[in-house]
Amino acid sequence: MGGDEGPAAIVTGIARAARADKSLRFLVVGDEPVLRAELAKHPKLDGVAAIQHAPDAIAGGEKPSQAIRRARTTSMGLAINAVKEGRADAALSAGNTGALMAMAKLALRTMPGIDRPALAALLPTLGDKDLVMLDLGANTECDVQNLVQFAVMGSAYARTGLGISQPRVKLLNIGTEELKGTDELKEAAALLREASFLPLKFEGFIEGDQLARSQCDVVVTDGFSGNIALKTAEGTARFVTDLLRRAFTSSLRSKAGFALSKPALHMLKVHLDPNNHNGAVFLGLNGLVVKSHGGANAKGIANAVQLSALMVRNNITQRIAEDLDNFRAHAFAESAK
Amino acid sequence: MGGDEGPAAIVTGIARAARADKSLRFLVVGDEPVLRAELAKHPKLDGVAAIQHAPDAIAGGEKPSQAIRRARTTSMGLAINAVKEGRADAALSAGNTGALMAMAKLALRTMPGIDRPALAALLPTLGDKDLVMLDLGANTECDVQNLVQFAVMGSAYARTGLGISQPRVKLLNIGTEELKGTDELKEAAALLREASFLPLKFEGFIEGDQLARSQCDVVVTDGFSGNIALKTAEGTARFVTDLLRRAFTSSLRSKAGFALSKPALHMLKVHLDPNNHNGAVFLGLNGLVVKSHGGANAKGIANAVQLSALMVRNNITQRIAEDLDNFRAHAFAESAK
Repeated sequence: MGGDEGPAAIVTGIARAARADKSLRFLVVGDEPVLRAELAKHPKLDGVAAIQHAPDAIAGGEKPSQAIRRARTTSMGLAINAVKEGRADAALSAGNTGALMAMAKLALRTMPGIDRPALAALLPTLGDKDLVMLDLGANTECDVQNLVQFAVMGSAYARTGLGISQPRVKLLNIGTEELKGTDELKEAAALLREASFLPLKFEGFIEGDQLARSQCDVVVTDGFSGNIALKTAEGTARFVTDLLRRAFTSSLRSKAGFALSKPALHMLKVHLDPNNHNGAVFLGLNGLVVKSHGGANAKGIANAVQLSALMVRNNITQRIAEDLDNFRAHAFAESAK
Repeated sequence: MGGDEGPAAIVTGIARAARADKSLRFLVVGDEPVLRAELAKHPKLDGVAAIQHAPDAIAGGEKPSQAIRRARTTSMGLAINAVKEGRADAALSAGNTGALMAMAKLALRTMPGIDRPALAALLPTLGDKDLVMLDLGANTECDVQNLVQFAVMGSAYARTGLGISQPRVKLLNIGTEELKGTDELKEAAALLREASFLPLKFEGFIEGDQLARSQCDVVVTDGFSGNIALKTAEGTARFVTDLLRRAFTSSLRSKAGFALSKPALHMLKVHLDPNNHNGAVFLGLNGLVVKSHGGANAKGIANAVQLSALMVRNNITQRIAEDLDNFRAHAFAESAK
């Protein structure tokens, strides 16, 4: 029931994903008559998608603290519950992010070895692959262990979702020298530098101006800085494209130039379209919960579904658990020396 | 002696500023033979610019802790010293930022009522006026008083440098609701909300995606988040323009479209050119120190000179001192009630 375009975009999106991958099955949770009408428009979803009725839905502006009380009657709460009960492998929502995180955390609980779950998303880059960045706002303040755990979880995202076997990981900082930044960052860097047994390559610090330059696959940060960086990047991309639009409409001549360049500029639009980078994942829970952009269209929903399926098939939760076990075993061996 | 283009850009820049404002006088500090040769190219600087010889210069990669030991022999150290001794009203450098901050702080000392100086810079927006943002990296961690003082200093920058009599001030946060963010941000917001006697309008929180949208004149943040936001904005603007360049060169047709749109696209380039937003100011010291982008050209240097002159004429340091006195007097009156 979430997202700017509501059930129409979501059902069209899953129809699109189902076309691309015949083995997918869907449990669509929300207002039954509405969903039935949407599903009727996509006959190919017969036998592929089932409906679970939810009498209510979480509103966009609803506070997480209020939302969690309505887990049993809302589409969001019931979708998460389906994951908890093993009736679904992942829950996907385009609704209220704060409510989704709070409800998912309460229902699915944090997995062993994770102190705090984190929100990870994909950012476009100049290269072929997107960049995984986390945390993007689940935790305003983070300690050393949180950051190390985020590195493990982000790498599992890059391995299972992007198919990178040894993701290159960096910590977001205000300089690349070892002495830069907070004590938490310096200590997390020291721990990660030693953790050569993990299936990732830790490569030090990265600054905000290098995020799009394909220098690494995973960027780890606290939720405050991560949210600031993500939103500043979104805002700046929109700022530059707004200026571009202004430039192109400033004269007849530039309008003609725009008409001529249009097919090429379409590439730029595709590259920056959030629908092509859709699928923020709430990592560190006993179950997979994926957040779609609220503004996602059917293509965006389909991308988020495919990403979720990839992560389920590649057992992201188990990968995180194994890496954490590994990390703890080595830390224990070190301390026993 | 600093900056990518060295003394040539700086001397040409001051010549440009001197043409626009006949009352400016310059003390050019650095290697005398080099500076003499540069000044000889600009006869109109005769009687306007004097040279102070400095046998040495701070290197770009030099650590601040090393730089401060060389205050008496380097162009940077001697330029700051000229401000300290009252032989100059402001020091402008395009060199090593960390060294400049450390040397300025040591020589000029923090002004009464300021716990920590901050680095403030100008960001381009969709509106007519640039945005003042601080701190951009002088202080990795900040407390409530630091943030309130940054608001006072940033407003003084906007009043004296941009001519805005009641600057609209916001705190950078990960949401705009009162409950969002760190305790420091919430407390700073509460103090600023009460401070109606200050010559500024405090308007709550702003998120990273709204920075360019002219919603306020001053954005206050800790040095870590500010640095992340500034660099992410720079990197994203470059990312989008890189994609644009790629699009325009992808086919003959788009190349023709580019040729036709070129005059209009020039507007975009001008709007994003850092030379048009040059002049980061190190605020909170007993004297004015301005940092030019290292990559600034003569136009950028001229802009930074004009900005410095504006702030000197409008007594930025005194304005900050008055506002702080005001703030303390009210806090005292409140506590005595």
